[in-house]
Amino acid sequence: MENFNFYSPTYFEFGKETENKAGELAKRFGATKVLLHYGQNSVVKSGLLDRVKKSLDNENIKYVELGGVQPNPRDTLVYEGIDLAKKENVDFVLAVGGGSVIDSAKAIALGVPYDGDFWDFYSYKVRAKKCLPVGTVLTIAAAGSEGSESSVVTQTSTDTKNGYSDDITRPKFSILNPELTSSLPAYQTAAGATDIMAHVFERYFSNTPNVETTDRLCEAVLLSMVSEVPKVIANPNDYDARANIMWAGMVAHNNIVGVGREQDWNSHGIEHQLSAVYDVAHGAGLAVIFPAWMTYVCEVKGHGVERFAQIAVRLWGVQMNFANPLETAKKGITAFKNFLTSIGMPVNFTQLGAKSEDIPLLVKKFGLTGDETTGGFYNLNSKDVEAIYNIASK
Amino acid sequence: MENFNFYSPTYFEFGKETENKAGELAKRFGATKVLLHYGQNSVVKSGLLDRVKKSLDNENIKYVELGGVQPNPRDTLVYEGIDLAKKENVDFVLAVGGGSVIDSAKAIALGVPYDGDFWDFYSYKVRAKKCLPVGTVLTIAAAGSEGSESSVVTQTSTDTKNGYSDDITRPKFSILNPELTSSLPAYQTAAGATDIMAHVFERYFSNTPNVETTDRLCEAVLLSMVSEVPKVIANPNDYDARANIMWAGMVAHNNIVGVGREQDWNSHGIEHQLSAVYDVAHGAGLAVIFPAWMTYVCEVKGHGVERFAQIAVRLWGVQMNFANPLETAKKGITAFKNFLTSIGMPVNFTQLGAKSEDIPLLVKKFGLTGDETTGGFYNLNSKDVEAIYNIASK
Repeated sequence: MENFNFYSPTYFEFGKETENKAGELAKRFGATKVLLHYGQNSVVKSGLLDRVKKSLDNENIKYVELGGVQPNPRDTLVYEGIDLAKKENVDFVLAVGGGSVIDSAKAIALGVPYDGDFWDFYSYKVRAKKCLPVGTVLTIAAAGSEGSESSVVTQTSTDTKNGYSDDITRPKFSILNPELTSSLPAYQTAAGATDIMAHVFERYFSNTPNVETTDRLCEAVLLSMVSEVPKVIANPNDYDARANIMWAGMVAHNNIVGVGREQDWNSHGIEHQLSAVYDVAHGAGLAVIFPAWMTYVCEVKGHGVERFAQIAVRLWGVQMNFANPLETAKKGITAFKNFLTSIGMPVNFTQLGAKSEDIPLLVKKFGLTGDETTGGFYNLNSKDVEAIYNIASK
Repeated sequence: MENFNFYSPTYFEFGKETENKAGELAKRFGATKVLLHYGQNSVVKSGLLDRVKKSLDNENIKYVELGGVQPNPRDTLVYEGIDLAKKENVDFVLAVGGGSVIDSAKAIALGVPYDGDFWDFYSYKVRAKKCLPVGTVLTIAAAGSEGSESSVVTQTSTDTKNGYSDDITRPKFSILNPELTSSLPAYQTAAGATDIMAHVFERYFSNTPNVETTDRLCEAVLLSMVSEVPKVIANPNDYDARANIMWAGMVAHNNIVGVGREQDWNSHGIEHQLSAVYDVAHGAGLAVIFPAWMTYVCEVKGHGVERFAQIAVRLWGVQMNFANPLETAKKGITAFKNFLTSIGMPVNFTQLGAKSEDIPLLVKKFGLTGDETTGGFYNLNSKDVEAIYNIASK
């Protein structure tokens, strides 16, 4: 096992009607004037925003509003938020929405106390020394940003999607009310669930040996997802299933399932190009890419077959073929694809709406040149990335 | 699933040689003068205390020392620590040791900023408003106090062992170096491991339905323990196995495996009387009591058979007998006892050094009178407690 540190200081308030505690929690974590940050109209229409405002009013916390966050949040709105927060002397950023809103809020919170351009952080030039405190009221189980140290923002002028990871950006509190996710369409629910599972897989596929506790925690989250996701697809109002998924989404990405070892994250990078080119949901793109990555690494390259066999047995209940572990591993990958199909996710380019003729563009956007490689579990070069897109296209 | 909150703000530094970061971390969390709190001579002899002191010196952090914490930490030393800390204007308590040292440190940290008697907290009269920050350098994987919100202290004059639970007492940082646990005798290692497993079982046996994510996380920790503990019993220097157990010990008790439902904790209460009367290791007492509690609740009372069958299948690999779940459940309990025996733990009174003629005394000390009951998964009255001691005595 490798040395590690783990720091997840977020206070989680979980359960029914917990959005009404937003004011109380904001006060506890020092807010006097809040930037209330959100996305499209759904939080307005549903009355959620009004409930949060009322909760702030009850604690005499002032607020200014900035809505309009889009999926794959843009730097342009972040700049607007930073200017507004400075002008209004905001001392707390409260995100009401999903991962995009929370990521945008983290970027604003980084930018306000910084004299330079907030993009300095996302272009890996500078590490942050300060960050306004952030709170969240989560409306979709997916990105895990409610408990994570990371955020991803797109620089509009260059169409560059970059991330910044720093414990300083972990939310002070996050409110998770599973009821708020009941109105999500099945497709969005399934895409969020796929994102959650992908966050675990990116950490699970590791060459670091003997990290059993982390392995088992990974499998725990995946087993719960395999049990609970079909329930909400069948019945969107299954509160307990929604609750299990929502909590699993946090656990999957605050890194408790990732400590003590090398991780991978190539599938996320490969998917990001699909999202960028076709504007598809990140989770739906992952449903297409992750099985293709598994097929390539395990079946084509023969790397880590025993690990793929392990997850086949422990997650998918495949019987171990001790004479032929590759066969077991392949059955696990097939089981994953079947599961994704069963919850309504695409598993190839056609189903996603992507085109195989765009593969050269996607590979180019991924950005590896010459002999460059990237990865953790299995290092990919540009040819490998192309091969994975090819598998995904079929 | 029930509403819950979860707050585990401790910064964990995990791995080899991490005790050398004690000074740096103490500084990060605001320490200028530290009360260095420890137990018996082992941390002195091993050189650990010197390394921690050097690390504090490197950051120009002053310290005063208070050693001598005993297993089942006493209020008398806590009072001494409070007086010393006040006199010396200490602003941080650094525990170097196991659960008893950390618990004693938490009690001191509660007492320093409080005008009254610290026992007010432990006798459930008052909730704390302030607490000095606490840090830990852990030397045994067992109690989980390095990440938990709770502590247990004994009032010497009345021989009363009480606990106080409050997020305010969660350590600011905890340093977990698995190397420090390598020199522990096998018996102490196994007793610590049993305590860790018991912390999970107390949370696992719950009547709250449909808490799959928490269930699976419980099973994850238990599966890892069943895999790793025999390795360290066979080879005390197996670093990775020590590391998996040490991290599992934290995960087992910061409540990430307990959220969203009712818990039990009767086995802990029943064991405490054994520790008090015979001065046995808490984990060894739990090895005797927990299987007896399971046998009583499941086999005698027939409560929660499906849950006992579930853990038999998922943890111990018992084949489910669909026609007779009780048989499956019983096999799981037997497997647990066999596991405990295999790691050198006692599973009955004789092996522990307890006497069946003391059962009336133990029941009396447990403290239920008349129709009083206590519990979560299964409510016990005084007769039930007596029956469990009787099973354990055989």
